[in-house]
Amino acid sequence: MSFAHVAIIGLGLQGGSIGLAVRELLPDTRTSGYDLSPAHRARAVARGLVERVCDTAAEAVADADLVIFCVPPGAMGLAGEQVRHALPAGCLVSDVGSSKQAVAKALGEALPDHLVIPAHPVAGTENSGPDAGFAHLFRNRWCIVTPPAKVDMVQLSRLVAFWEALGANVEIMTPEHHDLVLAVTSHLPHLIAYTIVGTASDLEDVTQGEVIKYSAGGFRDFTRIAASDPTMWRDVFLSNKEAVLTMLQRFTEDLTALQRAIRVGDGDTLFNHFTRTRATRRSIIEEGQDDARADFGRGDHDAGE
Amino acid sequence: MSFAHVAIIGLGLQGGSIGLAVRELLPDTRTSGYDLSPAHRARAVARGLVERVCDTAAEAVADADLVIFCVPPGAMGLAGEQVRHALPAGCLVSDVGSSKQAVAKALGEALPDHLVIPAHPVAGTENSGPDAGFAHLFRNRWCIVTPPAKVDMVQLSRLVAFWEALGANVEIMTPEHHDLVLAVTSHLPHLIAYTIVGTASDLEDVTQGEVIKYSAGGFRDFTRIAASDPTMWRDVFLSNKEAVLTMLQRFTEDLTALQRAIRVGDGDTLFNHFTRTRATRRSIIEEGQDDARADFGRGDHDAGE
Repeated sequence: MSFAHVAIIGLGLQGGSIGLAVRELLPDTRTSGYDLSPAHRARAVARGLVERVCDTAAEAVADADLVIFCVPPGAMGLAGEQVRHALPAGCLVSDVGSSKQAVAKALGEALPDHLVIPAHPVAGTENSGPDAGFAHLFRNRWCIVTPPAKVDMVQLSRLVAFWEALGANVEIMTPEHHDLVLAVTSHLPHLIAYTIVGTASDLEDVTQGEVIKYSAGGFRDFTRIAASDPTMWRDVFLSNKEAVLTMLQRFTEDLTALQRAIRVGDGDTLFNHFTRTRATRRSIIEEGQDDARADFGRGDHDAGE
Repeated sequence: MSFAHVAIIGLGLQGGSIGLAVRELLPDTRTSGYDLSPAHRARAVARGLVERVCDTAAEAVADADLVIFCVPPGAMGLAGEQVRHALPAGCLVSDVGSSKQAVAKALGEALPDHLVIPAHPVAGTENSGPDAGFAHLFRNRWCIVTPPAKVDMVQLSRLVAFWEALGANVEIMTPEHHDLVLAVTSHLPHLIAYTIVGTASDLEDVTQGEVIKYSAGGFRDFTRIAASDPTMWRDVFLSNKEAVLTMLQRFTEDLTALQRAIRVGDGDTLFNHFTRTRATRRSIIEEGQDDARADFGRGDHDAGE
C-alpha cells in the first residue's frame, strides 16, 4: 500500500522535512531528491535530507511511484516540465503548495499523462532553505488534500496514508474551498504582517532603533511571519489573488469600523469586539494548534502557580 | 536612595509582577497593595503579590513613599482621587499605563499636590489578572519614563533606579514621543490583531472550526495578542487616539499599495517588500527582544543542526 520510492523536487523547509520524516517514520520507503541550487544540494547531502541527492530532477524521479513538488507555487509548472519525459507511468504527482487551484492547473498542464493530487501541509516555520527542515514538522498538524473531481481512490488513499504516517491529520476538500480557507488563516495574516513591519520601517518620527527596542509591546509577534521566504509568498499572493483580495476587503471594512469607533470614542464597540476575540485563542489552544504558555512560552516565564 | 514603602494600586499582571519583583529583588522595601475586586484581593493574598493587601486604596498608600497605579488608563483619574486625602506629602506618584499624555493629565489633575512621573514598562503577556504576574516580567525589557518638563531630579533618579533594580533598562522620553512610538510598536499591532481575529470569526464561507484547525498557517500568531485584556485595550485606544489614528492611516496606505500590487500581478513590488522586512526580525533577535528559535520555540522543534 505505501509508496516504494518517493522523489522530492525542492529541498527547502518542506521538502527537507518530508525527506527527514520519511527516513525516520517510513524506513522501508526509498527517497531521492533534487534542488535547483547546487549549494542547497550540497547541504541536503550533508544533512541527509534524502537518501540520494541527484544532479537533475529527471534523475531524481526515475523509478519513483510518488513525486512531491516542494517549490514555490510560481515554479510548479516549470518543475513539472523538467521531469515530464522521465516520470514513470503511474507515478502519483503531488505537491505542498500553499495555493491549490493554480498549482493543480500548472502541474496538470505540465504532466497531462499523470494523476495529480495536490496537497498542502499546514505546517511551517519562518525559516527556509535546506537547513530549516526537521522530521517532526508535520506532527499534529493538518494536511489538506485537494483531489480532482475524478480521482483514483486507491491512489488517494495511499497519499492520505502517507501523510498520516508523517504524523499529520488529513482533511479532504476542494481546491476552491482550500484557497478560501487558507486566504484567511494564512495568506491574509502574512500580508498584514509584511505590511505593518514595512510601515514601521518607513516612519520619520520614530526611529528604526526605537521600533526594535520596544517591539515587545506586540510588534515582535508580527515580525516572525514577516521573515518568511519572499519568493514563496510573492507566488502565494499572485496565485491565490481572488480569495486574498476578497478576505482583504472584509478585513479593511472591519478595520474601518474599529477606526471609526476610536475616532468617535465609542468604547462599548471596542470592548465588545475585544472580548469576543479571546474565545478564538482559547479554541486554538484547546485543539492543540498552539502553545498555551504565556507569550508563546518565550524565555523562562514562571507565570501563575 | 531606594524607596522604603511601595504601594501598588491594581493587582493584575503589571501590579502583581511589580509586587513579586520588589519582594524578590528589593527585600528591604515594604509593599502594600489594593485592588477594586475582592476576588482579586483574595488571590493577591494567596499568591503573596505584596506583603499587605488592604481593603481600601487609602489604607494601602498610608506611609508609602512611592505609589504606582496599575489600573487601565481610563481608570487612572478615579484611582488617583481615591487616595487623594490619604497620600503622604512627598510620596512620588507613578504608573504603568500604555499611553502617557492622557495618564499624566489624569493623575496630575487627581493629585495636584504631588509629583507625578509616569512610566511604562514595555513588558507583558496576553494574560491578565492577579494570577498572571511573575517576578521576572521586566527582566531585559525596556521601561520608558516620561517625566514632566519640570521635575525633581532626585525623585526621577530614584524611580529610574527602582526600575533598574527590577531588571528593566530605562529610557527617558517625552510623553508625546512615547505615545507615538508605542502607537506603532504596540497599539497598532494590537488593533490589527483584534481586527483580523474578528474578521475570521464572521465569515459565512469558512467555518470557525476551519479557522481554528488551520490556524498554524499564520493566523494563530495574531490570536495571542488579541486575547489581551479588553478593558485595558479599550482605554489604550481611547487615550492615545491621535497617534493611533495617524499610524493606522500609514498602515492603510501601505496595505493598499500591496493590495494593488496583488491585483495587477506586480510580483517585483511584493518580492522587494517581503525581502526588506526580514532584516527587522533579525535586529529584534540580535537585541534580545525575541526568541531566535523557529516558531517562537513552540513545541519541540529540532530545526537545523
